Amino acid sequence: MKAGTTLQTTIDIAIIGAGVSGVYCAWRLQQAHPDKRIVVLEGSGTVGGRLLSVRPPGIKNMVAELGGMRILPATQPLITTLIEKLNDALPAEKTIELYDFPVDKPQNLAYLRGVYLRLADFTANPDKVPYRLSFLERGGTPGGIIVDAIEQIVPGITNPELTDARRREMVQHASFDGRPLHELGFWNLLLRIISPEAFQLGVDAGGYSSTLSNWNAADAIPWYLSDFGVAPHYKGFCEGFQSVPLALAELFEQAGGTILRHTRLEGFAEHDGGFELQLAEGPVHARQLILAMPRRSLDLLAPSSPPLQAPRVQALIGSVTPRPLFKLFTTYTNPWWRNAGYTTAAGEFVPVEAGRTVTDLPVRQTYYWPTIEGQPAVAGPAMLMASYDDGTSVGYWDGLRPRRRQAWQQGLEVAPPTEAFRSPAPVVAARAATTGADPTSDWHRYQAPAEMVQEVARQLGTIHGLTYTPQVQQAAFRDWGDDPFGGGWNSWNIGVRSWEVKHDIVQPIKDQPLFICGEAYSDAQGWVEGALQTADYVLEKMGLERLIEM
Amino acid sequence: MKAGTTLQTTIDIAIIGAGVSGVYCAWRLQQAHPDKRIVVLEGSGTVGGRLLSVRPPGIKNMVAELGGMRILPATQPLITTLIEKLNDALPAEKTIELYDFPVDKPQNLAYLRGVYLRLADFTANPDKVPYRLSFLERGGTPGGIIVDAIEQIVPGITNPELTDARRREMVQHASFDGRPLHELGFWNLLLRIISPEAFQLGVDAGGYSSTLSNWNAADAIPWYLSDFGVAPHYKGFCEGFQSVPLALAELFEQAGGTILRHTRLEGFAEHDGGFELQLAEGPVHARQLILAMPRRSLDLLAPSSPPLQAPRVQALIGSVTPRPLFKLFTTYTNPWWRNAGYTTAAGEFVPVEAGRTVTDLPVRQTYYWPTIEGQPAVAGPAMLMASYDDGTSVGYWDGLRPRRRQAWQQGLEVAPPTEAFRSPAPVVAARAATTGADPTSDWHRYQAPAEMVQEVARQLGTIHGLTYTPQVQQAAFRDWGDDPFGGGWNSWNIGVRSWEVKHDIVQPIKDQPLFICGEAYSDAQGWVEGALQTADYVLEKMGLERLIEM
Repeated sequence: MKAGTTLQTTIDIAIIGAGVSGVYCAWRLQQAHPDKRIVVLEGSGTVGGRLLSVRPPGIKNMVAELGGMRILPATQPLITTLIEKLNDALPAEKTIELYDFPVDKPQNLAYLRGVYLRLADFTANPDKVPYRLSFLERGGTPGGIIVDAIEQIVPGITNPELTDARRREMVQHASFDGRPLHELGFWNLLLRIISPEAFQLGVDAGGYSSTLSNWNAADAIPWYLSDFGVAPHYKGFCEGFQSVPLALAELFEQAGGTILRHTRLEGFAEHDGGFELQLAEGPVHARQLILAMPRRSLDLLAPSSPPLQAPRVQALIGSVTPRPLFKLFTTYTNPWWRNAGYTTAAGEFVPVEAGRTVTDLPVRQTYYWPTIEGQPAVAGPAMLMASYDDGTSVGYWDGLRPRRRQAWQQGLEVAPPTEAFRSPAPVVAARAATTGADPTSDWHRYQAPAEMVQEVARQLGTIHGLTYTPQVQQAAFRDWGDDPFGGGWNSWNIGVRSWEVKHDIVQPIKDQPLFICGEAYSDAQGWVEGALQTADYVLEKMGLERLIEM
Repeated sequence: MKAGTTLQTTIDIAIIGAGVSGVYCAWRLQQAHPDKRIVVLEGSGTVGGRLLSVRPPGIKNMVAELGGMRILPATQPLITTLIEKLNDALPAEKTIELYDFPVDKPQNLAYLRGVYLRLADFTANPDKVPYRLSFLERGGTPGGIIVDAIEQIVPGITNPELTDARRREMVQHASFDGRPLHELGFWNLLLRIISPEAFQLGVDAGGYSSTLSNWNAADAIPWYLSDFGVAPHYKGFCEGFQSVPLALAELFEQAGGTILRHTRLEGFAEHDGGFELQLAEGPVHARQLILAMPRRSLDLLAPSSPPLQAPRVQALIGSVTPRPLFKLFTTYTNPWWRNAGYTTAAGEFVPVEAGRTVTDLPVRQTYYWPTIEGQPAVAGPAMLMASYDDGTSVGYWDGLRPRRRQAWQQGLEVAPPTEAFRSPAPVVAARAATTGADPTSDWHRYQAPAEMVQEVARQLGTIHGLTYTPQVQQAAFRDWGDDPFGGGWNSWNIGVRSWEVKHDIVQPIKDQPLFICGEAYSDAQGWVEGALQTADYVLEKMGLERLIEM
C-alpha cells in the first residue's frame, strides 16, 4: 500500500515506531477495533526497533542478535505470555521457539588489569584477583558482592522468594541514612557499603558500566536483582528475538492494519481534537496518537511538536537517561576459543565454549555464540558476539566507525563505512550480493568498518592470551547509542519517583489523545518486558484489557 | 540603566554572554567605535562566565576559583598580552597580579587502587605502582608515558623547542597507519602504543578522564603537550581569575557600553538586515550579533533561533562535545594535610602543602590551595579544592546535589540545596548574612549540600590515610556540566578538521552579521587563551586588529 493513497483519509490511531511496543499496541488495537484505521509509521525500513536479528553469511545454524537477545521467563510474565499467545495465533511452521541461553561458565575468562583469571578463580583463588578487596569481600563473585551490598541497603530484599512487585514496594518506602532511596544514587550507596576496589571489580568483571552508574537507587536495586541477582535463567530465540515484533506486525497486517516503513514523523500539532502529523508526503490527521519510542526519539521530535514542549511533558520525558549499548559480531571458520580452556588433573580438557568472557578492555564482554538449539559450536563455522559494551567504552569505537548522528540526519538507518571490512572468503560475499532471497542480506547492511574489525581482533587476541589474531570472516555491528534511539536502554534519574512517572507519562496531558510507551519509562528498562508493561498501560487507557487478563 | 529604557532603540552590536570572550569583544569594539550602542546581555547576575572567584568566609588571604584558575604564560600569549594591556588601562590599585601556581610535588599523594603512593614513587619505587606496566613503561611518570606515546605517534612533536603553531601544522599533515590523524581518536591511538594498564594509569593518576577520552587525535596531541607535556609553569591570580572579565566589563562600561545582567536571550530571528532578539521584556533589534557562548548554550538557543537551525550551522555547532567539570572547595581551621608528609632519613619533616594529590576515587584531584601570594598555608585557617573532577566522576555527585538542569529551567544561576552544609562556626555565617558589603557573600550563593560535604570529607579522610574526617568549616561547589554551560571545556569530535571549523564558525553564514566565539571552538579548549583566540577572529571579521597587533 502506498503512503499517498493510505494517508488521504483520517487515521483513527497512528502509532509511531515499529518497535515491539508499537507493533504490540497495533496488533491489540486492531483486534479490538477491526473497523478502525490503525497505521504504524516507522522511520526506518525495518520492523523491530532495537530487536534486530540477522543471519551471518556461511553459518546456517546461528542468528546474530544485534539488539535485544534474551528474556528471563521466571520474572518476565508479559513476554512469556505474549509468546504463548503468538504461538496460538501463528501457523505451526512459524511458532516462536526458545532455547536455554548459556550463562557464565567457571572455565570462562576474565582478563582484568592485565591478569588472566577464570571465573572460578573469584571464589577458588581470591589471591589471584587483582583488586584490593576487604576481608569480607575476598572470595566473593563480583555479582555476589553487589547483591550482598544491596541486602545491607534494604534488608530482606534479596530473599529469592520475593516477587519483583514486592521488591518495588519495599524500595518505595525504604530509606538510607534518613533519605528516601529514590533521592539517592546507586553508586553513592554502593560506595557507602563496599570498598572502592570492590565497586570497580563489580564494574570491570560485571561487564557493564552503566548498570552500576549513579542512577536512581530505588529503581536500580530491584532492576539489578531481577537480572543479575538471583541465579538468572535466560532464554534465547531460535529464529532471533526480532521474530516477535515481526510476528506481531504480520498479525496486525492480517487483521487489516497498515505499516508504513521509511515514513518518518517530522512533527505533530493538536488539530481538531486529534493531531496533524507532519510527514514528508504532507500532513495527515490522526484521531489518536501513540508515540512508542525512547527518550532520545522524543527529544528529536519535540522541537517540531508543540504538545511535547509543555513543561509537564518535558519534565516527564527528562526523567530518564539514555544509555548507549554497542554490539559487534564476528564469524570464523572454526571456534578457536575452545582452545582457551584447560585440562583437569584427570586429563580431561574443558573447553571455553559458551556464555561470556569479561575484560576491562573496551571490548568488555565477548559471548561465545550458541547455535539455534542453544548448543556451543564444536567445529566448523562459528560466531562470537565479539564485543558487547556500554558507557565510555562505546566512545572507544567512535574513532573506528562512521560519525555518530550522521545517518539519522541523512535519512539513513545506518551510515555505510568508508572502508567496510572485506571478507577473506569472497565467494560467500559475492553470493550474498547477487541473490535477492539471500537470508543474510540484512547482515550486510550492518557491516563493520575494516579498522573496527582489526582492533577488535587485536583485543580478542589479547584477552584470550593468543600471540596471533584469528582471521575474521564477516563482521556486523550496531551502536544503539546513535540516533534516533540514543541508548540501548534508559535509566531512571535520581530524584524521580518512577512509580508515579511511569503512569503519568502514558497519557501526559489530561484528556488529550496522546500516549507514550516503551522500555524507557518502565520497571524493566532495557527489556522487552518493560516495553510491554508500558504498552499495556496505554492499552488500558484506551479501554483494552492488560495482556495477562486477555 | 534599566532594560526598558536601554532597549527602546536599536542596538548596534549585541553580545550574548558576559564570559571573558563576550566582555573582551565588548571592550575592544566600544574602544574602536565610541559612538556605537554596544550591549552585553547576560542571562545570570554574574559577569565572568566560567571564571568565578569567590572569597571563603574566615580566610582573608585566599580566593577560591570555582571556575578557571590558571594560565600558562609560556604558551598563552593572548591572555598574557591582555593582562598587560589591562594593567596599562587600570588604576594602580586595581592592576591584575599573578603568582606562581604550585604544581605537583614529589611528596604529594596518589591513592590508586587502594594503594598509597607518593608522586616520587612512580619513578623511585616502580614496584609499588599497582598497574601491570610493560618493561618500557615501568618507572615512568603517568604524564611521561603519555608524552612518550605521543612522540611515537608523531615523531618529533614533543621537541620542547617547537611552538604550538608548529605542532598544529604537524598534526594537520600527520597520519598513523595510513589514516589522517584528525580521523582518529586519541584513546584509539594511545591503546595502539601503550599497554591498557599504562593508559588506565594515565587516566587515574593524571587526574582527568576527559582529556584522554576518545576525542580528535589531531587536536588532543598539541592540546595535551601544551598543558601537561613540557614541564608547565602555571600562574594564578591574586584576586582571582574573574578579575580579568570584571576589569574588561568595567572598562567597557566606562567607555560607554552597557551590560544587562539577568537578561536572557530567549531566541532570535533575522530581521531587516540584522536580528530581532527575543527578551522577556519584549523584542529588540540588533544590527550585529555576537554569540559568545559554548556549545550547550547554542544548543539551548537553537530551537527558538532559526539562523542556528541551518544545516551548515548545526554541523559546525555539533563539531565539539561539552565535557563536564566539577569543583568543590572546603575550608578548615588548620591545614591538617601537612601531616600527610614524611620525615627524611636526616630527620627533616617534609609536609604535604602545595599542588595536588590524585586518586581514582570520585574526588579525583585535591589541591592544597595557595594563598594570594602563591604560598602554602602553614597554620591557621586554610582551604582545599577538595575535588576537581570530570567524566563519569561528575555523575557521582548527582545523588548529593540538587537535580541537574533544574536551575536553568527555573531562571536561576544555581539551585539552592535542600539542606545546605551548616558551618560549625555560626558566627562567621551570621556575619556574612547580615553585612551587605561582605566580600564572602558570593561564596554563600554556591554553598554545597550537607550530604555532599559529608561524602567528600569521608573520601578526603581515606586518601590521606586518616581514621577521622577533619571538620569542614565552609563548602562551596560549582558543576560546569550543568546548563547553560554543558561543560567546563569542550573537545573537538573525531573526523572534524578543527583548523577549518574554527574559522568557519566565527561567521557561520556568509554576509550575515552573526558571529560565534568562545573556548569551545578554539585551539585551546577549556582555556581563556582559546576564548580570546576566537574572540580575536570575530573582531578581525568586524574590521579590528588582533590583540597582539593592537
